[in-house]
Amino acid sequence: MSSTDALARLAAVIESRKPANGGDPEKSYVARLLHKGPDAFLKKIGEEATETVMAAKDCDQGGDGQKLVNEVADLWFHCMIALAHYGKTPADVVDELSRREGLSGLEEKALRKAVAREAESKS
Amino acid sequence: MSSTDALARLAAVIESRKPANGGDPEKSYVARLLHKGPDAFLKKIGEEATETVMAAKDCDQGGDGQKLVNEVADLWFHCMIALAHYGKTPADVVDELSRREGLSGLEEKALRKAVAREAESKS
Amino acid sequence: MSSTDALARLAAVIESRKPANGGDPEKSYVARLLHKGPDAFLKKIGEEATETVMAAKDCDQGGDGQKLVNEVADLWFHCMIALAHYGKTPADVVDELSRREGLSGLEEKALRKAVAREAESKS
Amino acid sequence: MSSTDALARLAAVIESRKPANGGDPEKSYVARLLHKGPDAFLKKIGEEATETVMAAKDCDQGGDGQKLVNEVADLWFHCMIALAHYGKTPADVVDELSRREGLSGLEEKALRKAVAREAESKS
Repeated sequence: MSSTDALARLAAVIESRKPANGGDPEKSYVARLLHKGPDAFLKKIGEEATETVMAAKDCDQGGDGQKLVNEVADLWFHCMIALAHYGKTPADVVDELSRREGLSGLEEKALRKAVAREAESKS
Repeated sequence: MSSTDALARLAAVIESRKPANGGDPEKSYVARLLHKGPDAFLKKIGEEATETVMAAKDCDQGGDGQKLVNEVADLWFHCMIALAHYGKTPADVVDELSRREGLSGLEEKALRKAVAREAESKS
Repeated sequence: MSSTDALARLAAVIESRKPANGGDPEKSYVARLLHKGPDAFLKKIGEEATETVMAAKDCDQGGDGQKLVNEVADLWFHCMIALAHYGKTPADVVDELSRREGLSGLEEKALRKAVAREAESKS
Repeated sequence: MSSTDALARLAAVIESRKPANGGDPEKSYVARLLHKGPDAFLKKIGEEATETVMAAKDCDQGGDGQKLVNEVADLWFHCMIALAHYGKTPADVVDELSRREGLSGLEEKALRKAVAREAESKS
């Protein structure tokens, strides 16, 4: 199974957990977060981003790369819950990433900005 | 093209930007971040997570869903740079997500924990 | 000079940078952030929190404690800008902290919640 | 009582919760976090920063300013736990903030950098 299929399948599961689709907050973690509303799952995005950063710092000290993978999975998972709540999908995100990757000028623009910032901060 | 292919292609581009693979910090934003080291791209994960949360809050007030998609794309993109630096790939993350989705007990465990937390916080 | 005075003086400087008080975005960093609006300084809170976490992780590896102090100062400074924008002051925050410290039951409640979470997560 | 005294008193309470000073993880929330180690309280800094940003966004929609004060208090409190763990105090942070406020050139430098970034990002 391709990654697309995997992300699409997970998105479908999340979609089925929406209150409007019969998701039961007593039986499903995702349904519970969706039922509690945006702050509940948005807060998790901040938490999991911090845990991702800490797991990465641990990798610098010989920590387990799989721990980093797990934290990024947690982060992306909660992003997918937010996307679902606002009517978007991981496919939309992947499309956006593809669009950027296809536009060769974008990385160069980001680079010019970064170079300018650094030149300035040394002045 | 499937999402998998899209993520795999983007991961390949990031891989090619590693200093060891000839990535040039003067010509590529990704090469520059990788050259500067972990703190440079980990910091961006914290930034983009916050921007994701703010874009989502704006959606609650009629904000543009595409803005949320763009911020999640930024967040996932910088996660992919971190994954590459530590020898991991988006496929590893998708595999982890699939593994969880396949284990029906996992959502129930997360739910039990959430229920316990809430019951306690009301006491 | 006491810390109170120091925080109050800094809050007064920030107050004077508000557009309504004549703060000039062309001459003052704080005036510029306040002029750009909430997302500009809220984004910085996410950034500086991440940098605080990274500086702390570096302390575990012999990193400089002053670096941590600097990052916490950046974080608190941008919190003070947000407080000012919404009509609040660092004194309000310190009052809240004092109130909690004075209520001996609060730490015990937080503890009970933490214990419940851990007991559950091992089940 | 001045804010300084309040912060110093709270710092003293945190200090007394260190394992080396007899803090009991079974009786104190702070002792528990310190006992569990850095990741436990650093993760909270990421969480509380996100909650601060969300409370601020809610203020834009008529939300309660006291909610923002409470979240900033949570954020600063967990920063103080981290500072204590690494041998630093809130007085060190306030000193750093005072030092900056006293150096009139610092805000101007931050401003020049911000202006350069914006000029570049429009190019």
